[in-house]
Amino acid sequence: MKLSRRAQVPPFEVMSVLDRVAQLRSRGRDVISLCAGEPSGGAPPEVHRLAAEQHLGGEPLGYSSALGLRELREAIAGHYGRWYGLDLGAEDVAVTTGSSGAFVLTFLAAFEHGDRVALAAPGYPAYRNILAALGCEVVQLECGPATRFQPTPALLDDAVARHGELAGLVVASPANPTGTMVTRAELADLTAWCRAHDVRLVSDEIYHGITYPAPGASDPRGVCAWELDRSSIVVSSFSKFWGMTGWRLGWALLPQDLRGGVDALAGNVALCPPVPAQRPALGAFTEESYRHAEQRVASFAATREVLLTQLERLGWGPVAPADGAFYLYAGLGDNLGDLADSAAWCGELLERTGVAIVPGTDFDPFHGREFVRLSFAAGADAVAEAVERIVAFQASRG
Amino acid sequence: MKLSRRAQVPPFEVMSVLDRVAQLRSRGRDVISLCAGEPSGGAPPEVHRLAAEQHLGGEPLGYSSALGLRELREAIAGHYGRWYGLDLGAEDVAVTTGSSGAFVLTFLAAFEHGDRVALAAPGYPAYRNILAALGCEVVQLECGPATRFQPTPALLDDAVARHGELAGLVVASPANPTGTMVTRAELADLTAWCRAHDVRLVSDEIYHGITYPAPGASDPRGVCAWELDRSSIVVSSFSKFWGMTGWRLGWALLPQDLRGGVDALAGNVALCPPVPAQRPALGAFTEESYRHAEQRVASFAATREVLLTQLERLGWGPVAPADGAFYLYAGLGDNLGDLADSAAWCGELLERTGVAIVPGTDFDPFHGREFVRLSFAAGADAVAEAVERIVAFQASRG
Repeated sequence: MKLSRRAQVPPFEVMSVLDRVAQLRSRGRDVISLCAGEPSGGAPPEVHRLAAEQHLGGEPLGYSSALGLRELREAIAGHYGRWYGLDLGAEDVAVTTGSSGAFVLTFLAAFEHGDRVALAAPGYPAYRNILAALGCEVVQLECGPATRFQPTPALLDDAVARHGELAGLVVASPANPTGTMVTRAELADLTAWCRAHDVRLVSDEIYHGITYPAPGASDPRGVCAWELDRSSIVVSSFSKFWGMTGWRLGWALLPQDLRGGVDALAGNVALCPPVPAQRPALGAFTEESYRHAEQRVASFAATREVLLTQLERLGWGPVAPADGAFYLYAGLGDNLGDLADSAAWCGELLERTGVAIVPGTDFDPFHGREFVRLSFAAGADAVAEAVERIVAFQASRG
Repeated sequence: MKLSRRAQVPPFEVMSVLDRVAQLRSRGRDVISLCAGEPSGGAPPEVHRLAAEQHLGGEPLGYSSALGLRELREAIAGHYGRWYGLDLGAEDVAVTTGSSGAFVLTFLAAFEHGDRVALAAPGYPAYRNILAALGCEVVQLECGPATRFQPTPALLDDAVARHGELAGLVVASPANPTGTMVTRAELADLTAWCRAHDVRLVSDEIYHGITYPAPGASDPRGVCAWELDRSSIVVSSFSKFWGMTGWRLGWALLPQDLRGGVDALAGNVALCPPVPAQRPALGAFTEESYRHAEQRVASFAATREVLLTQLERLGWGPVAPADGAFYLYAGLGDNLGDLADSAAWCGELLERTGVAIVPGTDFDPFHGREFVRLSFAAGADAVAEAVERIVAFQASRG
């Protein structure tokens, strides 16, 4: 029977790495996996406590409003006061089924079939795959070390000249896979460019708060696009800072003109975000839960320091400055040797040393074949041991 | 800024009814709401117990595979053995974020932008709104009492003659809003028609098990489309039979040719179904939980009997035979009087008597203005009292 071209999503290299990790482990091999996009440790205890209480009560949950429980929308609005000094209300916030749900709903509401949407390469592959599934034309901006792997007005002008008018731009800061962030001035430039070109900015801020600012630096948790322009769409989630991966609970800040459309679409496409998670998620906004999350960030910071002191020994380059998130994205340079690309190199590394990291091919069609992404969410000991094995592996290959 | 036409989803009449119900209740008015598409009572106790246990343990959850935990996929496969004698495996099943998630993923995988997909009117409005948001052309089949409000090969032939080739057909049995079911012979005819016309059948079976068969009737819980043809897509959910509305956990049975595409799309569009719900959902398949759910069905059946004995007094017609689900869908006939349509009539009924039911306008562009849907999920007492008030209301209007 006929299949849709929309189902022809390129397979992820990371999946074959993960499959091989599982296989090796099942054979008793000692594997250090630095592949994961998820912080270890899980949700704040208060969130689990509220969830347990809710289930012990056994009360039927039922549906919530399509955009989530009002209390939760209010609590999320309050979070923007705490972190950015923004005065938001429940009506600004749509609770969604993870940030994935936020992308699907806001892309549908903002972009027409055939619309052109730009994003950085390297970048998170789901953006382009969702956009393509929804019939949008994805314009990948070739972002390199010169712009800290982030889009710039010059890159956007160039994209328009080559491909035609854009309808949207997706910016992620801190970004996956690079961890790089845009400054307030850079985001202001992008916002101004978007406004001048009638382009909708989508700001992925799910790694906000997982950042490594110098003491006294401004905007220590990242700049929220709504500090600059409320016609942009802000997407965030409980998955990263609060460690609630798998709960599928995220949110979007909705510009006025998109609210009606997103609400109507949400009721049809998703019905409502997962209700068992919504009331417990209120527990993420207690002082204790913020502290719990900050402690995890401090532990990422310590692991990052371990990794940065070893960079010279690894001999990789260029290395994206890991401003935030928990990834190191780097070119392999001469270490690639006679191997065809970083996918082959990662395969060889895994077989010979039991260290699993991810090739850049999933993230960047231009230069991903020379890059790797190492997640340091697994902690300092794992990372230190992995570095030793990688250094030895590279030495053995000459 | 530009908005997408995709966001122009028609508003639901039911929302304004629900808003008015909330308003009246907040003013202390005694309102009987028979609007809900959700069974009261909630999840089986064993599901809540497992969920509480999981949160008390406080173990980090993390992501699952894009198509769900293998154990849960196996348990769902086992359910098809129990109910239909089908021998399925985990690989046949994709766990999804509610049935909504199953529709989005399978529609994307099976249908191209511009493809024509047919469905019954009256029918569940989210089908057509999701399909339209994904750029498909929705062909609404005018289904009346003569075909028990269900599609037939003759209606499909007529649709092809008028609109051109179809790519898909959505069938729901028991259907929302009518509650009517297709027999094994009728579904076999539809399946054969689809096969002959290279049309993908999507079978919505979320109300299976909430059925009111005569003693000894064949196929007491509904016929699963996979009993007839495994090239069809079967969609179901924990929301209705097990009362787990709001948990956002459903599934699809995937024909072989769609598996790769749905898997890849799921990883991008949804990442994975909600993890906190997945392990607890295993508790739905215990003997005790089946019993718990069957008891709720027995209580629906008792309420349905109360309602059916009052049909004559209501003087409505035509009335869809409520074979399953928990809805009565009926024409108002002369009771409409001088009111413009069933939306106006429902508004008047709510204001004057405090009984909330839903007009057919959301479900059927052809005849919905003359029809209403009454949900009997609220139980026998509520329904009996509502009938008294409706009868009095109708008498007062002469």
